[in-house]
Amino acid sequence: MSTILAQELVGLLSAQGKRITTVESCTGGLVAGAITAISGSSAVFDYGFVTYSNTAKTRLVHVPQTLIETHGAVSLQVARAMAEGALREAGADIALSITGIAGPTGGSADKPVGMVCFGLSRSGRKGEIITEAKVEQFGAIGRDAVREKSVELALSWALKVLS
Amino acid sequence: MSTILAQELVGLLSAQGKRITTVESCTGGLVAGAITAISGSSAVFDYGFVTYSNTAKTRLVHVPQTLIETHGAVSLQVARAMAEGALREAGADIALSITGIAGPTGGSADKPVGMVCFGLSRSGRKGEIITEAKVEQFGAIGRDAVREKSVELALSWALKVLS
Repeated sequence: MSTILAQELVGLLSAQGKRITTVESCTGGLVAGAITAISGSSAVFDYGFVTYSNTAKTRLVHVPQTLIETHGAVSLQVARAMAEGALREAGADIALSITGIAGPTGGSADKPVGMVCFGLSRSGRKGEIITEAKVEQFGAIGRDAVREKSVELALSWALKVLS
Repeated sequence: MSTILAQELVGLLSAQGKRITTVESCTGGLVAGAITAISGSSAVFDYGFVTYSNTAKTRLVHVPQTLIETHGAVSLQVARAMAEGALREAGADIALSITGIAGPTGGSADKPVGMVCFGLSRSGRKGEIITEAKVEQFGAIGRDAVREKSVELALSWALKVLS
């Protein structure tokens, strides 16, 4: 599934002459891995960031430490900041961010296992930066399944926004 | 296979109180993806770099541009520089780098499809940095297989060095 989505996405980005970047926490590199599985992806993909720890989020893509302290690493606010930071850092046209609780541990009443936040940042027609974020509750479907579904959601979202 | 290797590696790193980082070109995030597939990997993994383009290699992990111009992005020299740069940048105890030609295009007589260079950098007992590099010729076994075998080789190498 993610291969088909990645194939479509790389094709669309190539046709539009756009470049994508990724910044991943719970998916740990799998979105970048899906995109680079496609031959010819080097035309649309330069950089990917795997920011597994909070320090990595602040250092690599400049998420303000206070944002993490206030809202938590798994939050819409941090997902937005990750996407914006990656977009700027990579000089890309579109950036995808993923931060969530893949489980089986790490969940809480507020933020249960399977909760994943996504960010998408892109440059608009006038050069302005447009950033959106959303949250998905996949439930306790297992660590691998949460990660896989997160990869699919991120790729689908980028496809939809670019189409 | 890579799940078993990653499980062993995360266990070994945890037991030794060490942290690992990755910097990937042709595997595009799959080594980081394999490590973070393991629950508890956050104890040993903070950062991963996906440096797909030459610019990403120079900007994210400080590979000298001249090294790429002289030896090519797929070379033992660049694999070494990627690993050393990632080790320092992430403040990790061990760093794995991968740069190769997954194919099906991009090969040459000198550097055929399936040629992959690996680097491993680590801090020694006296705080010195020890870096090694090696090359593997997987042959034209297909893009996915080259990437998969590269992930396995990288994880196995780290396991062997740490054991």
